Amino acid sequence: MPFMDFLVPGGQRAHDVVGPAAFLDRLVEAEAAWVRAQAAAGALEGSTARALAERLGTGREYDAAGLAAAAEGGGNPVIGLVAAMRERAGDSAAGGDPAWRPLVHRGLTSQDVMDTALMGMLARAVERTLDEVLAAGDAVARLAAEHIGTPMLARTLTQPALPTTFGARAGSWLAGLTGVVPLLRRAREQAPYSLGGAAGTLAALEEWERPAGVGAAELAGRLGAAWGRELCLAGEPLGVWHTRRGPLLRMLEPLAETAAACARIAGDVALSSRAEIAELSEPAAQGRGGSSAMPHKRNPVLSVLIRRSGLSAGAALGAAAQAGALAVEERSDTAWHLEWEPARAVARHGIVAASLTRELAAGLEVHREAMRENLAAHGPAGSGSGQAARTAGQAVRDWSALRRDAAEDAAPQRPTTRESIREAKDR
Amino acid sequence: MPFMDFLVPGGQRAHDVVGPAAFLDRLVEAEAAWVRAQAAAGALEGSTARALAERLGTGREYDAAGLAAAAEGGGNPVIGLVAAMRERAGDSAAGGDPAWRPLVHRGLTSQDVMDTALMGMLARAVERTLDEVLAAGDAVARLAAEHIGTPMLARTLTQPALPTTFGARAGSWLAGLTGVVPLLRRAREQAPYSLGGAAGTLAALEEWERPAGVGAAELAGRLGAAWGRELCLAGEPLGVWHTRRGPLLRMLEPLAETAAACARIAGDVALSSRAEIAELSEPAAQGRGGSSAMPHKRNPVLSVLIRRSGLSAGAALGAAAQAGALAVEERSDTAWHLEWEPARAVARHGIVAASLTRELAAGLEVHREAMRENLAAHGPAGSGSGQAARTAGQAVRDWSALRRDAAEDAAPQRPTTRESIREAKDR
Amino acid sequence: MPFMDFLVPGGQRAHDVVGPAAFLDRLVEAEAAWVRAQAAAGALEGSTARALAERLGTGREYDAAGLAAAAEGGGNPVIGLVAAMRERAGDSAAGGDPAWRPLVHRGLTSQDVMDTALMGMLARAVERTLDEVLAAGDAVARLAAEHIGTPMLARTLTQPALPTTFGARAGSWLAGLTGVVPLLRRAREQAPYSLGGAAGTLAALEEWERPAGVGAAELAGRLGAAWGRELCLAGEPLGVWHTRRGPLLRMLEPLAETAAACARIAGDVALSSRAEIAELSEPAAQGRGGSSAMPHKRNPVLSVLIRRSGLSAGAALGAAAQAGALAVEERSDTAWHLEWEPARAVARHGIVAASLTRELAAGLEVHREAMRENLAAHGPAGSGSGQAARTAGQAVRDWSALRRDAAEDAAPQRPTTRESIREAKDR
Amino acid sequence: MPFMDFLVPGGQRAHDVVGPAAFLDRLVEAEAAWVRAQAAAGALEGSTARALAERLGTGREYDAAGLAAAAEGGGNPVIGLVAAMRERAGDSAAGGDPAWRPLVHRGLTSQDVMDTALMGMLARAVERTLDEVLAAGDAVARLAAEHIGTPMLARTLTQPALPTTFGARAGSWLAGLTGVVPLLRRAREQAPYSLGGAAGTLAALEEWERPAGVGAAELAGRLGAAWGRELCLAGEPLGVWHTRRGPLLRMLEPLAETAAACARIAGDVALSSRAEIAELSEPAAQGRGGSSAMPHKRNPVLSVLIRRSGLSAGAALGAAAQAGALAVEERSDTAWHLEWEPARAVARHGIVAASLTRELAAGLEVHREAMRENLAAHGPAGSGSGQAARTAGQAVRDWSALRRDAAEDAAPQRPTTRESIREAKDR
Repeated sequence: MPFMDFLVPGGQRAHDVVGPAAFLDRLVEAEAAWVRAQAAAGALEGSTARALAERLGTGREYDAAGLAAAAEGGGNPVIGLVAAMRERAGDSAAGGDPAWRPLVHRGLTSQDVMDTALMGMLARAVERTLDEVLAAGDAVARLAAEHIGTPMLARTLTQPALPTTFGARAGSWLAGLTGVVPLLRRAREQAPYSLGGAAGTLAALEEWERPAGVGAAELAGRLGAAWGRELCLAGEPLGVWHTRRGPLLRMLEPLAETAAACARIAGDVALSSRAEIAELSEPAAQGRGGSSAMPHKRNPVLSVLIRRSGLSAGAALGAAAQAGALAVEERSDTAWHLEWEPARAVARHGIVAASLTRELAAGLEVHREAMRENLAAHGPAGSGSGQAARTAGQAVRDWSALRRDAAEDAAPQRPTTRESIREAKDR
Repeated sequence: MPFMDFLVPGGQRAHDVVGPAAFLDRLVEAEAAWVRAQAAAGALEGSTARALAERLGTGREYDAAGLAAAAEGGGNPVIGLVAAMRERAGDSAAGGDPAWRPLVHRGLTSQDVMDTALMGMLARAVERTLDEVLAAGDAVARLAAEHIGTPMLARTLTQPALPTTFGARAGSWLAGLTGVVPLLRRAREQAPYSLGGAAGTLAALEEWERPAGVGAAELAGRLGAAWGRELCLAGEPLGVWHTRRGPLLRMLEPLAETAAACARIAGDVALSSRAEIAELSEPAAQGRGGSSAMPHKRNPVLSVLIRRSGLSAGAALGAAAQAGALAVEERSDTAWHLEWEPARAVARHGIVAASLTRELAAGLEVHREAMRENLAAHGPAGSGSGQAARTAGQAVRDWSALRRDAAEDAAPQRPTTRESIREAKDR
Repeated sequence: MPFMDFLVPGGQRAHDVVGPAAFLDRLVEAEAAWVRAQAAAGALEGSTARALAERLGTGREYDAAGLAAAAEGGGNPVIGLVAAMRERAGDSAAGGDPAWRPLVHRGLTSQDVMDTALMGMLARAVERTLDEVLAAGDAVARLAAEHIGTPMLARTLTQPALPTTFGARAGSWLAGLTGVVPLLRRAREQAPYSLGGAAGTLAALEEWERPAGVGAAELAGRLGAAWGRELCLAGEPLGVWHTRRGPLLRMLEPLAETAAACARIAGDVALSSRAEIAELSEPAAQGRGGSSAMPHKRNPVLSVLIRRSGLSAGAALGAAAQAGALAVEERSDTAWHLEWEPARAVARHGIVAASLTRELAAGLEVHREAMRENLAAHGPAGSGSGQAARTAGQAVRDWSALRRDAAEDAAPQRPTTRESIREAKDR
Repeated sequence: MPFMDFLVPGGQRAHDVVGPAAFLDRLVEAEAAWVRAQAAAGALEGSTARALAERLGTGREYDAAGLAAAAEGGGNPVIGLVAAMRERAGDSAAGGDPAWRPLVHRGLTSQDVMDTALMGMLARAVERTLDEVLAAGDAVARLAAEHIGTPMLARTLTQPALPTTFGARAGSWLAGLTGVVPLLRRAREQAPYSLGGAAGTLAALEEWERPAGVGAAELAGRLGAAWGRELCLAGEPLGVWHTRRGPLLRMLEPLAETAAACARIAGDVALSSRAEIAELSEPAAQGRGGSSAMPHKRNPVLSVLIRRSGLSAGAALGAAAQAGALAVEERSDTAWHLEWEPARAVARHGIVAASLTRELAAGLEVHREAMRENLAAHGPAGSGSGQAARTAGQAVRDWSALRRDAAEDAAPQRPTTRESIREAKDR
């Protein structure tokens, strides 16, 4: 299932996070982790859970195309997937056990799994976006520092305004990235699993055999905590969120804001790389910026695609917010199904915008001479470069402080990644 | 490249029109048709054109995944595709001819091909949607006729209002479908190819060798007409539309309006199939409407997905209109690239909404007894059924008239489908 | 009630069409016309209708602020207005007659009046927008003709492409305006009143005393036709559209497309008036384009506000389409109320964009010398000016043809304006 | 300038925060506070600042209609307002002093004032929304507590699911409100003023006479801090945000999320008050829920308007995010102007949704008998009420904890309101 979307150039950068195979992995992973969680909560024997989870495998064990088509029947892909997973679990010829069948998806509703898989996807999108933003910010910080005293013309409402420095401009770009980092970190930490059962009451758990002395409420708490640990997702502190969609909107806002922060950088590059201004050029690269008709051209393609992503993420954020406003009762018709495409769009465009911006910033060509000439030709007398330099300096220091924090909490953060957890488990 | 989108259940219904393979076909088709058009316009020998077009093949000859990834480089997939097509054209070992290479994409710009392929996709989407609407309308017309006198309670602002008939309700659904048919037909007829060349002036044509006595303008006219005939697309009467995007918006409005007309039907079914109202049920079908947790449930899944599509198409229409407002100069950065996803979303959700509605309407179960009981329990005294029946009757007659028109112009319409044209050509 | 919206600069250009006083006029006008229509349909004595309609007056007779606040109670302003109008009608001390009270709003539902008033507002918005587009187009046509041979550099994806002429650029602007004129004309002609009664069946009419030999259906037909004549609105050919919202969407699309066509012109002016490009300047005017901090600046304010309007209209079009997809049953909760703000936004921004564009085009300063210099500095060798000139010429001829049509049908159109109808009636 | 918007019923509830008079007050307040801030920073004598600020007065001293119309000239209302304020400042006949004229707006750019006034408006919107949410939440908490054991039928995807309790349903509503409270509090604390000067460098300050030993950077810091204290706005920690619009988006997200949380409650009430379900009724009130045609009806008008606001706020959030993605250079054309309407829409609909929800929740009528009957008629056997009661209990405890926090920090919060600050100053 390689990336194959001709209408979203650059989308391959997010494909391993938001593509169909990735989402199927998130679904299967959620179900398999639920089996392990049952053991962790004392509701299932550990060896059974391990064997069953092993048997369930990953997304690639399942017929993706068949499941996608079957999703129409129930309105979501979980129903078909659960059937396939139970089939697999119960196939004794292939190492399964019929007794395992009811353990798959036990006590869950399809929305639990869809929401949790969606959050798994969004959590990864946030992680990836954050990585890209940090790399992009490092490059921008270098630009701001290097050009702290490079005079250029400030433009306001398209027109020449006052002298500034390219360092101040890049410092303003940097502040945009600096601003989203804590939002992305918080989003990553708070991304919740969804656990409500058929009607948001986890009623089915009351009928489970429970460890001695453990009530249904405590069992629910243990199950959730274990599921969250397995999936590196948090609990939603306010409980079930089947029809309370703030937790989703709060995941999407930082991604959309990131895409917008990148788009603002790209907007500047697109304008500044116009031939008549010529103060910046996108990094030259084989196969980039060419034209099918005019070999002499070098189009600011990175910038174009970044802006595309910034605007697309903004529109999708609005669509997701509207979907949330339509939520009703214990689980919604329509409102829930309406969220999936915009949520993925925000995730995709957040990653793509940040990733392209990293590349743009890392190789951006700065033409000091053109800056000087344009300033001389169009700028008013006077100088703001002292203040501009201070602005640039502050932006760089803010970034450095944020990076130091990142370095410090790198160690404790590590173990929250899925890979290390799984490794830890395997040891 | 089967349908594999877990986040758009029902999307498989549009996959052969809007999926990646279909779009790649549209791109290749546009380029191959351009070669034939050169011959038809007298700018290329017919035998060369036929051999070259044959050699170019269809989308499946090309590396879709590679081209999709490469689209990032130029911001669109055409640049890579043209390179691959020229490669193929010039490969003499495989039956090509190096002299053919420059004939591929000759005089075009990538936007010509993208816009034309997009219109090819949208034209097919409109055709498919129209087919589905006609079938859905036939089913709704039967409902309206059959229930012209079936009393039911009219609801306004959620509350019991006055007596009506289910025929009048279905007649109102039908009028929604009746209303979009002429819009879809007009959209299909007007869908234009895009032909402007690198800067919207078709300047390259001035350097072509031209048939004796044929000026550049006339050659351009001939080329466009021939290209349009090949692709079953019209000329845009006002010329180049690289940065004049009304022609696109006018293709999308009828699709979005169709999705909304379907969503209004689905909204009624979703409400009416609530257990406490129970006046309508979605068609029962194996694997439809099930729940992963509650075997007793029968969810109105068709209605849910139709409403999802109606709302999604509306949002995408707005995004496309905004993109159009950002168009600049001879060919836009960003504004152009921003259109593709919403255009596809409108097309997809138009088809999906209409197709699901056809199925919904064809098998809808009407519970007269519940209608009578609800009316008796909650309706005020009095009757509006005479007027309601007239409304229903009018709606059915309007539909019949429209269908008769369709039957009458079926013959002349036929030859405008691609298949028949191609067949005609092959004969 | 003067215009007072600090957050929509330029909004005063649409205030007499979309402002509160205008909308109140539309509401009162609809109710008063309904009284006259009863007489025209033979259901009320002519002298009574005239006296009562006279008594009802216009919007300024009513307490706008009180009615606006009271609209919360019923969810729309009609309920309060009808009470006030009946009060006024029945006040015998002031020339009313208690017997007139029930004649006001007789047989209507509040949505009939809201929808009809909304269409009255939109019809005027379309008329005004069309007037502005025609004036703007005349100015753009002069630019295209005057500069048919003025060489300039074509830009694609921000970069220098090939030579073109400013006439070709202006011709492309003109084609955008040419394209919307027939859409606006059609919208104006088709704008329908809304007549369904409480539950879309006009059931109340069955209890009216009717002229001898006139059935309820015929009476409904007569009433609608007379109401439409009074209000210069058409009948919706498919009947009641309370929950079939295509008729609204079809009014809005041309306005949004107009705003986008204007925004594309404005986008070019904003870019071209950058100091480094300097090919175009907005018309100089007292108090326009100033800066609160930098006296030397001349901001392209018209262009900024036009683009703002183009983008805003696009977003609002999407919101209206989504609202239409939420329609249910005989009259909708939420879906209906959700339409009003976006409908007004599209109308406002359509008018404002077109009106500002007229001003922009009429006074646009073209700097041939800068065009020549930029072309020499950045353009590739070669020429496309022949083809460009042909494009410009075609655009101007298309516009002239459209204007001749307008001149021809000017006379028959006149009598369809409200004022002349009323005058005709008064004579 | 009373509320007069017929197309936004309920809008009067936000009029004193987002209406034109309020925004004009925010503009004037920002300029007057800037004069005081100059004194507080040591750049102006205290007595002069006090006299001048006094002279500048409040919004009602200025010609609102004239300023709104004049806003077109500069693209925003600040330019005209500054002229009027300088006029007023310098009018020695009326107690002004010509020497005061240049002190007004000294060193600022119009965007500083627009952004700051916008944040002033949004900060008040957040405060008001928070107040309404707290009152609404108290009422919902009472419902949840009172009905902790009231059995009702859970519905999922419109269909009967399992037993729950109305307390659990209300607990889920409550969690929605609980979730937004910290977001609104944070937004209120972080709402920043905007201070960048003409080109984002505060260059003008370098030419001011400064207190001995105070550099331009320190003066800027002092000015910002003093301005913020005057206006109860924070500094944006990352500096100038003229073209870095995350700070705005972060103000809007909690308001939109609040409106969605309210809409989810309203959606339930609208469904549950259907005659066939009849489990809930909106509070009865004189003039509420009436119909212009059917006296027997009681429409769920509060719910309708709340949902309208939830959906409208969501759409506007998206539009604001898109505008942010279009930001460029030191100050944007179009992108900036595009934000104002959606920002106001989010603020208005946030307040209106919360305020209507408070009223809805406070008077909601709960029909236990109908809940019991529907459960018996449509519910499957079994019980989830134990778990449901626990959910409800948790939600109520969470709310209580949050309210205790509110009570504790009530005292320190007070002095941060504008009125008390001004009073403190006057003493």
